[in-house]
Amino acid sequence: MNWKGFGTFAAYSEIMSLLIVGTVAFDSIETPFGKEEMIVGGSAQYAAYAAGYYYDHIDLVSIIGDDFPESELSDLEKRGVRLEGVKKVIGGKSFYWAGKYHDNLNDRDTLVTDLNVLADFDPILPDSYKDSEFVLLGNLTPDIQISVIEQLNKTPKLVMLDTMNLWINITLEPLMKAISMCDVLTINDEEARMLSGEHSLVLAAAKILKFGPNYLIIKKGEHGALLFDQNNVFFAPAMPLQKVVDPTGAGDCFAGGFLGYIAKSGDTSFENLKRALIYGSAMASFVVEDFGNRRIKTITQADIRERLIDFVRLSQFTI
Amino acid sequence: MNWKGFGTFAAYSEIMSLLIVGTVAFDSIETPFGKEEMIVGGSAQYAAYAAGYYYDHIDLVSIIGDDFPESELSDLEKRGVRLEGVKKVIGGKSFYWAGKYHDNLNDRDTLVTDLNVLADFDPILPDSYKDSEFVLLGNLTPDIQISVIEQLNKTPKLVMLDTMNLWINITLEPLMKAISMCDVLTINDEEARMLSGEHSLVLAAAKILKFGPNYLIIKKGEHGALLFDQNNVFFAPAMPLQKVVDPTGAGDCFAGGFLGYIAKSGDTSFENLKRALIYGSAMASFVVEDFGNRRIKTITQADIRERLIDFVRLSQFTI
Repeated sequence: MNWKGFGTFAAYSEIMSLLIVGTVAFDSIETPFGKEEMIVGGSAQYAAYAAGYYYDHIDLVSIIGDDFPESELSDLEKRGVRLEGVKKVIGGKSFYWAGKYHDNLNDRDTLVTDLNVLADFDPILPDSYKDSEFVLLGNLTPDIQISVIEQLNKTPKLVMLDTMNLWINITLEPLMKAISMCDVLTINDEEARMLSGEHSLVLAAAKILKFGPNYLIIKKGEHGALLFDQNNVFFAPAMPLQKVVDPTGAGDCFAGGFLGYIAKSGDTSFENLKRALIYGSAMASFVVEDFGNRRIKTITQADIRERLIDFVRLSQFTI
Repeated sequence: MNWKGFGTFAAYSEIMSLLIVGTVAFDSIETPFGKEEMIVGGSAQYAAYAAGYYYDHIDLVSIIGDDFPESELSDLEKRGVRLEGVKKVIGGKSFYWAGKYHDNLNDRDTLVTDLNVLADFDPILPDSYKDSEFVLLGNLTPDIQISVIEQLNKTPKLVMLDTMNLWINITLEPLMKAISMCDVLTINDEEARMLSGEHSLVLAAAKILKFGPNYLIIKKGEHGALLFDQNNVFFAPAMPLQKVVDPTGAGDCFAGGFLGYIAKSGDTSFENLKRALIYGSAMASFVVEDFGNRRIKTITQADIRERLIDFVRLSQFTI
């Protein structure tokens, strides 16, 4: 089965590219299963690897220092990820995050956040990126997210926006503007409750959809993810795993897999978004099996196919 | 559609009865949506109502004081629930529990537990109950659960056992014996971790299945439920609801709906247990919509059908 068969078709039509904006960084991570220092991380990096299994035309926007390993950049390029929009700051240091996960692997403490070159990140889209049909705005300040959308030549087919509690707390006004400009908002359950003031996720979703997006994805970590539009709700479970080694990057791989699959299929109907939620969940279920990007870099199309069938077995029934 | 069509068939063959053992009681409940004093509760009562929507031949075993309202007993009888095994203690008071739920509705504090007549509960099965094919052992001391199994004339098709953290802590040895005698064990995620010493629910399930049961159901409240056997895992989501008024009885209605559906179909294959998990989840999704048994007593077969279709919409996809 040729999962990337769409590439053939694209040769005869306009290439629809997937723009991913976010961090490319270093992480130091401690979990109950071990400790890894200064490994490669970052939301855009994770999302690009995940999307790359479904789609070929990925344009990355990020910022790094000259400490970032060339070999990691060329690994991304080998997956068909274009790096023209990744700015390298000579003499600068890449964004660095250090965290320690609790035994339950759901909670974590941030030990270090060194913004470094990210502090001055003001992305300028290369001209060749400006016709992107699919846009994934990783968790960054709302101002950066808005700026990226405003640099596009035309309205994309789908803009997906990730954010976090920090921006809800300190930059609510620009965040609300960014949310109003996206098609799919993705946040976790706690953030959905903060943003809406509703405890019930059904009521929270109804309120948040009035802020502008057509679709809302509420991520619940090991408890799966909910997809809402005005009339429908769909639930994708998380795959129960023997061992979750490192949850870092799960949300990013989920988002990358989700939008990569939609870009591949070119279909933004609710039915296809349901499917994309499962394809994204499959990617999240791989990345957590090892530290950093180790697992997400080494899976095969056969692994993915098998995992998707596991999702079918896990959740399909007849009444 | 005749949901209870099995009754017709039963007239020509042996009636397979569903035995439910548990409490019939009073509760006082406070949730963010209000407070109700001395309303009817109890695990067997909830399970019997839920099972009664799928199956006609239900035999109840419990103990009550003479304070328990006759009208509530006759409501159960009208559903085809036989009460020969419900012992009424003249001059005794029914089991009483009072609790207050936190704002998240997942956590609760027990304010009062008055065992009353339950303190001397030593159920004697009526002869007419002893050929039960399906047995639901509600959360009681393991000694009572074992005693009920030992009074049966023959090995039932399926014995389902519910328990709780208290019995894991204070009566582990008899609990392990009871578990070894059941076919389906149902516990929550925290209890599965306690009982197995494993954090991963996949590893916890593998360990617990070695204790004897063929199937393990791990309940995760608003996050759904997992069904395991040696080779398979299935996940049933909880229905996202606008309003959860009172979570009391959700687990009991889930168990009653689950086993009621299996009794109706007479099929104990994994495929059918998956379906039963959804039928049980539907019952749980109703009972929480109002205080006590108010909602679970008043739903119709059309309500159930509609809710089951909602479950299909919520979780079914193609890859």
